[in-house]
Amino acid sequence: MPAQPPTLQPWTTLARQPVLQAGDGRFLTVEYHTVQLPDGQVIEEWPWLRTPDFVNIVAETAQGYFVCFRQTKYAAQGVTLAVAGGYIEPDEEPLAAAQRELLEETGYAAPDWTPLGEFVVDGNRGAGRAYLFLARNATPLQPIAADDLEEQELLLLTRQEMADALAAGEFRVLPWATAVALALLRLG
Amino acid sequence: MPAQPPTLQPWTTLARQPVLQAGDGRFLTVEYHTVQLPDGQVIEEWPWLRTPDFVNIVAETAQGYFVCFRQTKYAAQGVTLAVAGGYIEPDEEPLAAAQRELLEETGYAAPDWTPLGEFVVDGNRGAGRAYLFLARNATPLQPIAADDLEEQELLLLTRQEMADALAAGEFRVLPWATAVALALLRLG
Repeated sequence: MPAQPPTLQPWTTLARQPVLQAGDGRFLTVEYHTVQLPDGQVIEEWPWLRTPDFVNIVAETAQGYFVCFRQTKYAAQGVTLAVAGGYIEPDEEPLAAAQRELLEETGYAAPDWTPLGEFVVDGNRGAGRAYLFLARNATPLQPIAADDLEEQELLLLTRQEMADALAAGEFRVLPWATAVALALLRLG
Repeated sequence: MPAQPPTLQPWTTLARQPVLQAGDGRFLTVEYHTVQLPDGQVIEEWPWLRTPDFVNIVAETAQGYFVCFRQTKYAAQGVTLAVAGGYIEPDEEPLAAAQRELLEETGYAAPDWTPLGEFVVDGNRGAGRAYLFLARNATPLQPIAADDLEEQELLLLTRQEMADALAAGEFRVLPWATAVALALLRLG
């Protein structure tokens, strides 16, 4: 047992110092924070990652198929299953970003949106927030207009196929697996 | 339709250049990679984050309770529910790290371990890999011996309480939510 009960007070940011800006800083800025703990202890040079907030969308068509991709992704070092998603633009609402990315990346639009949660990526260093969504009754509306560098193939999976692929580790990027898992739990 | 079918060839890393090492580099090193796409295009200064691989563990006791925490976490800007976890030491196997962290952080040990998957955190920039586990039939073995900076309270939640907390967004850090969601799906 701790000598004192936890106060569960948040840490306080006393100062922020940018130490690296990649390019124009849009995709990555590293800061050192000076952080004060509830007991008064001060930590200098706590690394903090500023990367864009992003959305991921699990989209179910009106026929009950799930709109996914098979794609290459640099950090996955090869092929992975994926769901739609992308960075939130400055001043854009997460839901609007999700609707935009679904349409751009898949050509689908959906009338029914359920938020699946908002999560900080790295509990210590930040690295942006993930806003996850379930879109239902999606229908194809326009050709794909994504500007992504990655090669990708659109797939329509049954719920069982998507669940099996998740369990087999085929969604290899963390927020994509999170979105699929939360969607499956929500759909019951 | 694309003019050419996707080859789904991985990108190639042509060069790596460290550009920032925080402290001794154990927790964060930033690199710029020179990356070649399958069509031959070369991208210079692709930011890449080296952070430690880590484990998270959803542990169910022999009585059917789930070993969780309520804790403060800097990036969550306040209180969040959490599961056990931590960084993998150099040359440590993920399962060994999971068993060590569960014991250190909760005092529990478990005989039954199920891997829930391995995921890269950031599909573009790396930022380490998450190795997620379900531990079953956990029993208390020793006092808590964690050296974490965060204040935390151990909680034993029923499966329904954990599922409700997940759906309510109370696991506010991405890999923790992923681990809980995958564990709930696995438990059926």
